[in-house]
Amino acid sequence: MTLPPLSRRSGVAPFIAMDFMAEAGQRIRAGEDVVSLAVGEPGAPPPRVVRKAVTAALSGGRVPYTDALGLPALRERIARHYRDAYGVTIPSERVAVTTGSSGGFILSFLALFDVGDRIAIPRPGYPAYRNILEALGLVPVEIETTAATRFALTAEMVAAEHAVNPLKGVLVMSPANPTGVMMAPAALSDLAATCTRLGLWLISDEIYHGLTYQGTETTAAAHSDQAIVVNSFSKYYCMTGWRVGWLILPERAVRTAECLAQSLAISVPYLSQVAGIAAFDATEELEVIKTGYARNRAVLGEALPALGLPVMPMDGAFYAYVDVTKYANDSMEFAKRALREAGVAMTPGLDFDRAEGSRFVRMSYAGSEADILKAVDRLTGWVRKA
Amino acid sequence: MTLPPLSRRSGVAPFIAMDFMAEAGQRIRAGEDVVSLAVGEPGAPPPRVVRKAVTAALSGGRVPYTDALGLPALRERIARHYRDAYGVTIPSERVAVTTGSSGGFILSFLALFDVGDRIAIPRPGYPAYRNILEALGLVPVEIETTAATRFALTAEMVAAEHAVNPLKGVLVMSPANPTGVMMAPAALSDLAATCTRLGLWLISDEIYHGLTYQGTETTAAAHSDQAIVVNSFSKYYCMTGWRVGWLILPERAVRTAECLAQSLAISVPYLSQVAGIAAFDATEELEVIKTGYARNRAVLGEALPALGLPVMPMDGAFYAYVDVTKYANDSMEFAKRALREAGVAMTPGLDFDRAEGSRFVRMSYAGSEADILKAVDRLTGWVRKA
Repeated sequence: MTLPPLSRRSGVAPFIAMDFMAEAGQRIRAGEDVVSLAVGEPGAPPPRVVRKAVTAALSGGRVPYTDALGLPALRERIARHYRDAYGVTIPSERVAVTTGSSGGFILSFLALFDVGDRIAIPRPGYPAYRNILEALGLVPVEIETTAATRFALTAEMVAAEHAVNPLKGVLVMSPANPTGVMMAPAALSDLAATCTRLGLWLISDEIYHGLTYQGTETTAAAHSDQAIVVNSFSKYYCMTGWRVGWLILPERAVRTAECLAQSLAISVPYLSQVAGIAAFDATEELEVIKTGYARNRAVLGEALPALGLPVMPMDGAFYAYVDVTKYANDSMEFAKRALREAGVAMTPGLDFDRAEGSRFVRMSYAGSEADILKAVDRLTGWVRKA
Repeated sequence: MTLPPLSRRSGVAPFIAMDFMAEAGQRIRAGEDVVSLAVGEPGAPPPRVVRKAVTAALSGGRVPYTDALGLPALRERIARHYRDAYGVTIPSERVAVTTGSSGGFILSFLALFDVGDRIAIPRPGYPAYRNILEALGLVPVEIETTAATRFALTAEMVAAEHAVNPLKGVLVMSPANPTGVMMAPAALSDLAATCTRLGLWLISDEIYHGLTYQGTETTAAAHSDQAIVVNSFSKYYCMTGWRVGWLILPERAVRTAECLAQSLAISVPYLSQVAGIAAFDATEELEVIKTGYARNRAVLGEALPALGLPVMPMDGAFYAYVDVTKYANDSMEFAKRALREAGVAMTPGLDFDRAEGSRFVRMSYAGSEADILKAVDRLTGWVRKA
């Protein structure tokens, strides 16, 4: 008897934020009073119009498979959103509904890239990029970014890397996780032009669009009809657990994505698609929630630096990326102690940056104002003792 | 300007059943009276207890991310199901909740197999196996099956193939799609023993368990703690559009699956997990629905052969795999004409068998009795004219 080995490519790093979420959850179930700033998840329930639409759908009968690329009505509603929010015309045929942005990454990576292809991603950045790329046999090429470029990949960085060792694609995110920093519209436009010139796929993760507090937000779809846009209802629309998002695809990639989606997903959850259609009518409620994030952002933006914990420019999303070097050489240790001693869960920077991440932690301010105030209060007492 | 190419591996075949579903849907929306037997999807709405549980969850607040491997309560409930239904003890830690069986395939293939690994699958078989394997850089090794082995892969076939060109894994399904035929318990047990002896992964797709009309159903988990079981709430539980299923994993694969799921999916839809917990309490309602399938099965099992359309043994699932050679050399053409001329959608066998599939179509009898009677009536008139 020989036990077969697990695959080599499955040895991806854990998503440390989720491990912290799991530990925080265990502690909460065991009766501990933990404030979790670990996961990028809105504290608000789904909007009222969403709950109403889904309750109606649920009482009305079947919860069926849909077309692989999504309910036509949702694809049309998303296309209309691009007209309303950005003034960009996207035919609904170019919209693919996906199982969260996660499903969108799998679908677009498989549609665009073959085993061994090199894809540039920013460091620090969302850890799932690296992990999904590696699991699919692709090579993430991490390019270090700094405050000098607003932590964004630039056209120059991409061209320089491509000249040395050819890339097949570039993946950027603005507003960014974990830094909360945004690319300037001109920087995104330059990058799109460079990708077109060099024959590279550009994937733009716009999941935090709608959540910006300073600066101007722009979609890659406005700069290139060859760019792939990834987005989701999880963040601005407060719909994490529904697992529904979308892609804007170049026309020539649509049928390929459809065939892949038919076999890889069959369809996206039906009720979540019904929810997505309704979510675009929840603007009033969602803007109130965003105002709450803005208040939380102001609280953290003042309190953390005062404790000797500097933060990156908080342009958008709902994250503070916090330099903890005053208190610790190792942010993993800092985060573990903060959870166990202060009852505040946060995510160590190593999730986002294996080179420099031990200097940083990420705190999500998507929870309630009460939670943020409690977290600040606890951290204040705790670091003063440290 | 150079447009980058799409990936080579994304050139997977369409899932023809879904293309037919899409066309049937368009015709229905355009006002045509189409009976669809194309997709393996129960006609019944989700069980009442499921709708009640989800409506309550929805009114109660947040719809959050869950642990990557699923809500602990659902993992425990699934583990209990193995005790109740099969008398097998599975610790809940070995249960991974997935986004449908589709999510389970992606997760297990990535956890077990590296690029280039060869995995044996039966022909005819579920087309997504081949498509997902190819998209993930794996090599599906189709082994022809016939009535002589109840259309199942046998231990001998696997050992013979492995001796010529080593395999890494074997994927089987019983009751099978598209044939509806079941493996004998002894055949599954032999296959599990052979996989253990040869050091091969055994993946057992048990999505049609619960839907058997003759023969005994057995789970691979009863025969080997190294087998991977794939299952879902889509079929017996009438919950296709919820996209929720599960894996039973060998203990040593659990953490790997968790890390992959964290990055590839984050979590499975929350409401669908709530629905899954409730679904195990819907047995009374579900058995009534199954009785309806049994009636439909009897109708088709009598009517089709009488029209000169022989069917495979209809042991389980809800499919008739029908030999159409009396009327057509090309089942794709037969299916297209049946849709356009008789208003009956079915799936051409090429979806399931690229070698012999042009002789067969698959009809799903998971719809209402009225639909099946209408389909038989229309087909009777149509083939008599043909």
